[in-house]
Amino acid sequence: MKSALPKVLHPLAGLPLVAHAVKAARMTDGVDVALVVGRGAEEVRAAVLPYAPDAETFLQKERLGTAHAVLSAREKIARGYDDILVLFGDTPLVQPDALAALRAAIAGGAVVAVMGFRAPDPTGYGRLLEQDGKLVAIREHKDATDEERAIDFCNGGIMAIAGNEALALLDAVGNANSKGEYYLTDIVEIAAARGLTVVATEAAYESVLGINTRAELAEAEAIWQQRRRHALMLSGVSMVAPETVFLSHDTEIEAEVHLEPNIVFGPGVTVGSGARIRAFSHLEGASIGPAAEIGPYARLRPGAQIGDSAKVGNFCEVKNAVVDTGAKINHLTYIGDAHIGAKANIGAGTITCNYDGFLKHHTEIGAGAFIGSNSSLVAPVTIAAGGYIASGSVITNDVPADALAFGRARQHNKEGLGRRLRDILAARKAANKSTS
Amino acid sequence: MKSALPKVLHPLAGLPLVAHAVKAARMTDGVDVALVVGRGAEEVRAAVLPYAPDAETFLQKERLGTAHAVLSAREKIARGYDDILVLFGDTPLVQPDALAALRAAIAGGAVVAVMGFRAPDPTGYGRLLEQDGKLVAIREHKDATDEERAIDFCNGGIMAIAGNEALALLDAVGNANSKGEYYLTDIVEIAAARGLTVVATEAAYESVLGINTRAELAEAEAIWQQRRRHALMLSGVSMVAPETVFLSHDTEIEAEVHLEPNIVFGPGVTVGSGARIRAFSHLEGASIGPAAEIGPYARLRPGAQIGDSAKVGNFCEVKNAVVDTGAKINHLTYIGDAHIGAKANIGAGTITCNYDGFLKHHTEIGAGAFIGSNSSLVAPVTIAAGGYIASGSVITNDVPADALAFGRARQHNKEGLGRRLRDILAARKAANKSTS
Amino acid sequence: MKSALPKVLHPLAGLPLVAHAVKAARMTDGVDVALVVGRGAEEVRAAVLPYAPDAETFLQKERLGTAHAVLSAREKIARGYDDILVLFGDTPLVQPDALAALRAAIAGGAVVAVMGFRAPDPTGYGRLLEQDGKLVAIREHKDATDEERAIDFCNGGIMAIAGNEALALLDAVGNANSKGEYYLTDIVEIAAARGLTVVATEAAYESVLGINTRAELAEAEAIWQQRRRHALMLSGVSMVAPETVFLSHDTEIEAEVHLEPNIVFGPGVTVGSGARIRAFSHLEGASIGPAAEIGPYARLRPGAQIGDSAKVGNFCEVKNAVVDTGAKINHLTYIGDAHIGAKANIGAGTITCNYDGFLKHHTEIGAGAFIGSNSSLVAPVTIAAGGYIASGSVITNDVPADALAFGRARQHNKEGLGRRLRDILAARKAANKSTS
Repeated sequence: MKSALPKVLHPLAGLPLVAHAVKAARMTDGVDVALVVGRGAEEVRAAVLPYAPDAETFLQKERLGTAHAVLSAREKIARGYDDILVLFGDTPLVQPDALAALRAAIAGGAVVAVMGFRAPDPTGYGRLLEQDGKLVAIREHKDATDEERAIDFCNGGIMAIAGNEALALLDAVGNANSKGEYYLTDIVEIAAARGLTVVATEAAYESVLGINTRAELAEAEAIWQQRRRHALMLSGVSMVAPETVFLSHDTEIEAEVHLEPNIVFGPGVTVGSGARIRAFSHLEGASIGPAAEIGPYARLRPGAQIGDSAKVGNFCEVKNAVVDTGAKINHLTYIGDAHIGAKANIGAGTITCNYDGFLKHHTEIGAGAFIGSNSSLVAPVTIAAGGYIASGSVITNDVPADALAFGRARQHNKEGLGRRLRDILAARKAANKSTS
Repeated sequence: MKSALPKVLHPLAGLPLVAHAVKAARMTDGVDVALVVGRGAEEVRAAVLPYAPDAETFLQKERLGTAHAVLSAREKIARGYDDILVLFGDTPLVQPDALAALRAAIAGGAVVAVMGFRAPDPTGYGRLLEQDGKLVAIREHKDATDEERAIDFCNGGIMAIAGNEALALLDAVGNANSKGEYYLTDIVEIAAARGLTVVATEAAYESVLGINTRAELAEAEAIWQQRRRHALMLSGVSMVAPETVFLSHDTEIEAEVHLEPNIVFGPGVTVGSGARIRAFSHLEGASIGPAAEIGPYARLRPGAQIGDSAKVGNFCEVKNAVVDTGAKINHLTYIGDAHIGAKANIGAGTITCNYDGFLKHHTEIGAGAFIGSNSSLVAPVTIAAGGYIASGSVITNDVPADALAFGRARQHNKEGLGRRLRDILAARKAANKSTS
Repeated sequence: MKSALPKVLHPLAGLPLVAHAVKAARMTDGVDVALVVGRGAEEVRAAVLPYAPDAETFLQKERLGTAHAVLSAREKIARGYDDILVLFGDTPLVQPDALAALRAAIAGGAVVAVMGFRAPDPTGYGRLLEQDGKLVAIREHKDATDEERAIDFCNGGIMAIAGNEALALLDAVGNANSKGEYYLTDIVEIAAARGLTVVATEAAYESVLGINTRAELAEAEAIWQQRRRHALMLSGVSMVAPETVFLSHDTEIEAEVHLEPNIVFGPGVTVGSGARIRAFSHLEGASIGPAAEIGPYARLRPGAQIGDSAKVGNFCEVKNAVVDTGAKINHLTYIGDAHIGAKANIGAGTITCNYDGFLKHHTEIGAGAFIGSNSSLVAPVTIAAGGYIASGSVITNDVPADALAFGRARQHNKEGLGRRLRDILAARKAANKSTS
């Protein structure tokens, strides 16, 4: 990955890779999580915590192979489980049903179950050698005969092991190979040699897709996005150009929502039914009410709560603010740390001046208030319900209900001075040119 | 579609599906339109009207199958036509030449002509069984023999019927099938049995592409967009990244226009030769003159008329405004309900304050005027030709030609007070922290 | 191309097509460039100059074929070279290693070496007829036998000729063909007939991809972009959605940079390690320091130099300005012709009023200064270090270090007037309606 960040912490759909794998595992029944980590243990643990609060972490001090990694959690395995499911932190697209199939194989009597997949071009993959429906060996590509190389059923790496046999099998793995590592895949032949049942299940390629470069990460992201977009469309969300809509792992969108092209959903966004998100919008940590209209070019940041039928329009930013039903923030506006009452109208170019360099302050705008264009609302400040702010005002004091407030200078016209100024400036420009 | 909106009213390229079908039909010669509608009759009629003002609408009260639907227009069919062309409201990509081919088949002596297509995987489609160049039956997949299933020539649904035989054939269709419906496709066998000539024409797959989910709608949109982008490029429009340019059904772009990535065209846009539309622009209902430069991040809304060589730059919105030749609106500006004279220069952050909460008002800016940055122009207001507005002004009164106007407060500096304020705020922040 | 611009000057990745070809040639050792031009000679020369300052230009007055074009540079060829490499201005994706292979063939004894490629569908291409590893002829599709048409090894056009034989071979080319043109490809048969060695090398299709329409230009752009994005990802740059990142020919991005979807890089951008470029950003001629955060919706224009850990946020434009370490420009701001000191904070809606209609002026903002929101800084103006500008101020005079400056009107509240104004406006609106 050419990265200081541990690979399994790189984000996919805004969530670290390892958390995807853990989430998938937790979607099958009754799963306890043991986390085997090397580098970045604390960060990895923190990434997984929201999805497995009771996960136990085991440190793999030396990197001596996959069987060695699993055995780092020996203490947990020894506690007794029906099955041990081995996932990898860098295979984020594994499907819960593919994991359930592995576990079902163990429940059905297999001692080892390996997740296989069909490869259009199997070159380089370990082949799954089966006999009478049983898996007898995993043959590495370099060791395979021509006949074996013709097999397109390949080892996906993920496996399940019967809990009562797991340690005995893992302990039998040796490291007499060129790299001197303990390979988890060796338990297939060990178990088969002991007359135990080993099987392979078949999963879609993406379930076993491992990530080793940022290019592969981008491919996995594309698969994830395409899968999620498709599911949303089938559930009743319209997308003019689904390939330009980027979702997060936790994006929730109700039916009858219309999405224009080019929308980016950061984490933590919910969109209510009938809302319309227009092109070039960027949403993070925001809730959008039913029938609201967002964008084009709207940026909602964490804490933006947009009410029913409210509007946030172009070149507007809303952060940590509740916008009530039917309020309108249509153009070139910054709303931060504020509450906007129902049906209030915020004119173009309005700025809530919420920051004094040290602290953030609140702006309260009452229901039905009218904020004239290009106004500056210097927080903390309250414009009570029905307040009316003249365009171009700087508002530093509270405005009572139904009051008119203005804070702007009187205009002066100087006849002919525009032309004179122009003449002076033009002369100066000419002078600059002649000296430069 | 999981939608309250009738399926045929979902938009493709900004136009309801049904209108696409009607438009295609109207592009062949001498076509009268009969609209058979169930749900949403009024809305469907309204969607079609611009493309077939004389369309007659027929209500299909019960949904008893496709033949029953066609017979809902019995009255119109009985009026006597050379041919009856049956299209569906959910096959929007049908090509006019494919329709013309069907009608030509009828003109050439066929009584029924069916639009077929070659399916890479025909599973599930009705197969077209031909003998000696004649169509003898449409065999549903489930009823087909293995030999018939090997046929890849499939029924696209759209057909033409000789006008003088249409009612006789349609009336002969029965409903002795599992769903108890009257199927239009049955007329193929009925006609063949009567010794009448039935043929199949071959069309591209997209011509018969029916839409049943929002995912299929998105696929059809992608095909439409790709088709239209390609045609525009061949006509002399440059697109750096055509897959990121989203056109509407009526977008018109002249040759020698350069389009950067990420442009969304809503309905009603025309772009003159030599114009350059920069990235992240969003245009609706706007006309753009030759050699104009729009964007990046420009939003043109309905009624924006941008003149020759004029510029609208980043984070600018223009609505219902005429912008004359060579005028410049370059940064962070809202222009609404206005006229900007030739070569006027609108400074960064300018806002036309056009709305008072009830009515919209006009701003008139004369040729060659200079609007200093961050000005608020409170409409109705006129800045006459050559007027010069000082930066940061609030302009509430008309400005005569060549006058200089300012409406801003005088600046005061308080020495050392910046530091004192900082100290106070820092202390307050520290206090807040210690109590929280 | 349907263009007034000569084809080879159309840009790909922001660079004229012809410059791509020249750049590729210059990446092989010891290359002198001769430019044969017809239309637009001066512009073509200027486009090539940065990549081949010593290029000699030769005018092809009549367009009499490719051999005639090469002979336009007779004078240069006669000067004596080991090999003559013939490239075309409209094949921009040619790879340097493919050119090196051609030259190596000449160095290895061949007198003519032709760049071939494998075509999935060779229809229309000239086939390369080989015997015993030697090229014996190039057969045009229309003249080919069925057996020859089955060959998928095709002529890519680009070739190398031994310098000492080049003129003799070129002078032997005749024009006894239907178009009366002198074809360069004819030298293959001429050389073979003279018993000289002619060979074909094999290159990837894109190396020989010629551009004849704007659609093909877009395809080439897509290939170029995909190639460059992939290389950047492998070098340690993360891209959430690489297909939405548009690079320029000279974009330089260090490792550990994170790119969100939808970013457009114009020419002349460098990005330092650890920087994060957020969605919908547009960058041209800008340098971005390590760990800086740019966007979403940031526009950096030429001369923007963003320092370490500085931030430029949404709807902000920065042009010709140095932004020092840790400074923040977060919302709706225009900074032009300025210097922003370290850790200065520029409030939302700030505008540097840098243009007076004739000249551009400089704004100097000292380290640690605080610019309150919605301020207008009328250049030339200096806010010294630690200066504090009250929100909504218009600043026309210099502000001393640590001073507090304000330039805004006092606020007035008129009790009850908001409601009265509303009543008046509502009545006026009603009156308008009844008369319209």
